[in-house]
Amino acid sequence: MSRHTDAIAAISTPPGKGGVALIRLSGDGAFDIARKVFVTAGQYSFDKIKSRKQTYGYITESGEIIDDVLLTLFPAPNSYTGEDTAEICCHGGITVTAAVLSALLTAGARAAGPGEFTERAFINGKLTLTEAEAIGNLLDASGREQIRLNSHSSRARLNEKVDMIRHSLVRLMSSIYARIDYPDEDLGDFSDDELAKELESVISVAVALRDTYRTGRAISEGISTVICGKPNAGKSSLYNMLLGEDAAIVTDIEGTTRDVLERNAHIGKVTVKLFDTAGIRSSNVTDQVERIGIDRSRKMLEKCELIFALFDISRPLDEEDEQIIRQLKNAHGTVVAVLTKTDLPTALDTDRIAEEFNNVIKISTEREEDSIKAVKEITEMLFTDVSLHIGRDAVISSARQHATLNRAIELMSIARDSLLGGFSQDAVSTDIERAISALGELDGREVNDMVVADIFSRFCVGK
Amino acid sequence: MSRHTDAIAAISTPPGKGGVALIRLSGDGAFDIARKVFVTAGQYSFDKIKSRKQTYGYITESGEIIDDVLLTLFPAPNSYTGEDTAEICCHGGITVTAAVLSALLTAGARAAGPGEFTERAFINGKLTLTEAEAIGNLLDASGREQIRLNSHSSRARLNEKVDMIRHSLVRLMSSIYARIDYPDEDLGDFSDDELAKELESVISVAVALRDTYRTGRAISEGISTVICGKPNAGKSSLYNMLLGEDAAIVTDIEGTTRDVLERNAHIGKVTVKLFDTAGIRSSNVTDQVERIGIDRSRKMLEKCELIFALFDISRPLDEEDEQIIRQLKNAHGTVVAVLTKTDLPTALDTDRIAEEFNNVIKISTEREEDSIKAVKEITEMLFTDVSLHIGRDAVISSARQHATLNRAIELMSIARDSLLGGFSQDAVSTDIERAISALGELDGREVNDMVVADIFSRFCVGK
Repeated sequence: MSRHTDAIAAISTPPGKGGVALIRLSGDGAFDIARKVFVTAGQYSFDKIKSRKQTYGYITESGEIIDDVLLTLFPAPNSYTGEDTAEICCHGGITVTAAVLSALLTAGARAAGPGEFTERAFINGKLTLTEAEAIGNLLDASGREQIRLNSHSSRARLNEKVDMIRHSLVRLMSSIYARIDYPDEDLGDFSDDELAKELESVISVAVALRDTYRTGRAISEGISTVICGKPNAGKSSLYNMLLGEDAAIVTDIEGTTRDVLERNAHIGKVTVKLFDTAGIRSSNVTDQVERIGIDRSRKMLEKCELIFALFDISRPLDEEDEQIIRQLKNAHGTVVAVLTKTDLPTALDTDRIAEEFNNVIKISTEREEDSIKAVKEITEMLFTDVSLHIGRDAVISSARQHATLNRAIELMSIARDSLLGGFSQDAVSTDIERAISALGELDGREVNDMVVADIFSRFCVGK
Repeated sequence: MSRHTDAIAAISTPPGKGGVALIRLSGDGAFDIARKVFVTAGQYSFDKIKSRKQTYGYITESGEIIDDVLLTLFPAPNSYTGEDTAEICCHGGITVTAAVLSALLTAGARAAGPGEFTERAFINGKLTLTEAEAIGNLLDASGREQIRLNSHSSRARLNEKVDMIRHSLVRLMSSIYARIDYPDEDLGDFSDDELAKELESVISVAVALRDTYRTGRAISEGISTVICGKPNAGKSSLYNMLLGEDAAIVTDIEGTTRDVLERNAHIGKVTVKLFDTAGIRSSNVTDQVERIGIDRSRKMLEKCELIFALFDISRPLDEEDEQIIRQLKNAHGTVVAVLTKTDLPTALDTDRIAEEFNNVIKISTEREEDSIKAVKEITEMLFTDVSLHIGRDAVISSARQHATLNRAIELMSIARDSLLGGFSQDAVSTDIERAISALGELDGREVNDMVVADIFSRFCVGK
């Protein structure tokens, strides 16, 4: 990682036209650059500007006023990046914002690269890696649960949990070191048995955190989902019902093929990436389903993690239903059988469905609220830990976090097994050290100093 | 105009995803609403937050943290709107920003309508009408000269100039009133002759300001422009040259027909709305021009204010050129004859061109810089007052401003003519009053109190 500290500048608000825009300038000499381009509107000089106070004035270039703005100075380390940072709130026109930025670049700032402010915040210890990831996800969030998952409190809880695990390991480590390095001092806290027991307890905390990934992923990344069923089984009704629940924040994602569209919807806590085939969207369902062909349907059924298989309760199972049931035996994902049109008299052999599928729910367009509730409950039950309180509990949500945590758990488990197998504390120290290092990869915190400090805190004053 | 003062809130930064977004909350009870949703990150209470100081904390709803933000309080009247205003800088994700706004609305704010903050700024005397118009134009600006025209200094100069005219009229008015109402006091400053002379002088200031509209409009609204000429006369070269000069800020505007596209370019001070026909853009010029047909060409030539008529200097005038020359006799706009390919030997009867057209320039793709300069000079000469210094001089730029100023000038002229025709000061007072009122429409400032104050300033203390 390069430790650039030169002054960088960029427009931090979204591109396009708005009432105001915010330009951020951070790094060595940021305040000198600000001083070059900013003139206070009052009678006082630049040096009289108080920290963090929004100060009215003008951005100038070659003696000409470009815009009247509010400037705020955030002296290091009390800024987002941890560096001297100036923030300029200017008028939000596309060209005028570009002109203000251009004045900063002329005065000596470099155009910031993507994520460079946050990278500096990380390098300067203002953010952990998991926090930086969460902020990225927060900017992309499309649902309330995604906001909760990446909120400040959620980020803080994850930091605390990882720190707790690390601290336990550091305590074990320093005890081992103390015992090895200063055998006469009787500094080690733990016997071999105690060490194994402590490790076991840390592992269980780490495993519990690791297992939150199932929920975190369902919220953050989402579950690929498809709806299948014979023509007129109610596919488009369910599709609209799912999207309708959260219609305002549904986002279309360009599919790889013209006829497949991915839409993100939020069913309770779970983000579903709903693969829509042209057949579902079309008003003329039958024609389209025929056109799409069996190949594509099979591919979707194999690929998706969640399959809603629809059966019309008002009609007996026919050959088409049977074909779908046979196809679903090859599905890798979880199948939820959905009995539709339950307001109509039952003509379907529901026992047969119950035999074939583990998960069966009933829906009806006549009782939309209950139907949505049924879909939500089964989806949350299948893909989340319902006891987790998102926003208050520590939850991991990226494959990277999951992999590094798994690695730490693996190393701790090796250490514990070695101890139980009769190896010495000395022999397991490397694995514990590597587990600590894996945790360091998880949140980006360096720990060498911490271990050293913890060791020497065991010595009495003056020694 | 309705004088709503309830608390309103809106996202003030451009829509879309960015690093940060800014939400503005203004009006009665804005700070109470902020207090409901904002919790400081420090140990201190909301009431300890200092004015205009960016304070870190959390936006909460139902006890749950939605986002960590920077809050700034701008107590009335020192805010954009002149009301108590809170600004919240939150993370710039689409959904998280919407969630923060939603928390404000839940806590009692109303969603602001378009321009409502600026409307309040105007109502509260923080902005004149011409300033509000300029800020709107600044947000839409696509060129440097448009930024200058609508910059803070330019806005201030226009305010001052209108105020100066108003002040002169108010002085005349109060002199007349004083003379009429208190004939014994000898309070009137002006004889009839002096009054006529003073009016003449104010009129000339107003006329000079009115005449800046030609330049202001050329910068702000732009000049509709078309390029014509026979196939291979060099139309696409000139088109690309004009757009290329300022390529980064060229904007496409959807035309009313498929084949006509309007692009804004900036030629020196002048914004040209360049109507491109498919023929110019196409690589196969001949085909396209034939396809477009004579009707559309004629329409463009009649409609546009500026016509660049291209003649290939390396070929003698032919029937097609003659036809274009005949067509241009019906043009309403200004025609600039452009002799192209001037690096080639001259085969064209250039005297004939000089006879037919008042404005002739020469260009060549081999000498692009000189060619651009020639186009720029003639365009600025034809459509602007080159002695005006945009950004430092008062300039009007909207049809509304032009119309109200014209009305004021008309009324002042009537008053002057009446005086010169022997009417009494009393008789002309109504016209001067109406001229002041027209100026009030121009910048939205009310003047009744001003006249009253000016009159009574003539009395000595204690009277």
